[in-house]
Amino acid sequence: MPKLNLDTIPQSNRTGYPAEYADKVAGRWYRRLGPAGGLTQFGVSHVTLKPGAWSAQRHWHAGEDEFVVMLAGEAVLVDDSGETVLRPGDCAAFPMDDGNGHVLQNRGDTDCVFIAVGRPPTSDCHYPDIDMHLGADGRYRRKDGSEF
Amino acid sequence: MPKLNLDTIPQSNRTGYPAEYADKVAGRWYRRLGPAGGLTQFGVSHVTLKPGAWSAQRHWHAGEDEFVVMLAGEAVLVDDSGETVLRPGDCAAFPMDDGNGHVLQNRGDTDCVFIAVGRPPTSDCHYPDIDMHLGADGRYRRKDGSEF
Repeated sequence: MPKLNLDTIPQSNRTGYPAEYADKVAGRWYRRLGPAGGLTQFGVSHVTLKPGAWSAQRHWHAGEDEFVVMLAGEAVLVDDSGETVLRPGDCAAFPMDDGNGHVLQNRGDTDCVFIAVGRPPTSDCHYPDIDMHLGADGRYRRKDGSEF
Repeated sequence: MPKLNLDTIPQSNRTGYPAEYADKVAGRWYRRLGPAGGLTQFGVSHVTLKPGAWSAQRHWHAGEDEFVVMLAGEAVLVDDSGETVLRPGDCAAFPMDDGNGHVLQNRGDTDCVFIAVGRPPTSDCHYPDIDMHLGADGRYRRKDGSEF
């Protein structure tokens, strides 16, 4: 049956971030809908941000497009152009290699829910605000290349 | 700015269907968000189904995954397993080559709005209920190969 039963899909707040940068995403709970639905050509995540949680550290991908559509609550989209409130029904697109670091932050007191579409990162991901870099090998390092 | 201003993105009800199968999608109004947002790795459509409109003729793709998330109103998802009502927040996945023809039908009296994610069709699309076939060349023909 094509309709997904979200309640049966495992929810995780796991992150590959090193400890010093992981606190912002501790309240980010996501379900991977692609594997659950048998999709392989793109990734889809159903994401809940608890109050105070961020979608990620502010970042941009060298080789992967991203798209989000808001389902519930509010998030503040922070990027190089400033801050923009996203409400249910709002859509945002993040083209690969645009150099515009972005993050969604839940600054409210209720959960914020959105769908994120992308592809598994196979290229560098840049974090303008912190001393961290994700290489094409999938490993997080400091910007000078040293290990955490 | 990553947030998309939907009001400035052109809306179309154009279809490539031959006249005899086009009436069901006359009330399907869509915006292509991928080009508007600079995305090239997958396609995203913001779709409004007017009362009575269908998302498509019931179909399945040989080579393209599809995903939908409901934003407003209700749609009836019709596929080989029967009929399923989709409401705001509901998600459905349609893996390529699954042989399960699917369509969303707005049987209500208010607009239904959803986001559809996919890729431009470059493979055959099969229509189990009607005498129509979409070839990998992007042309609609009858199932015996004859032209409309």
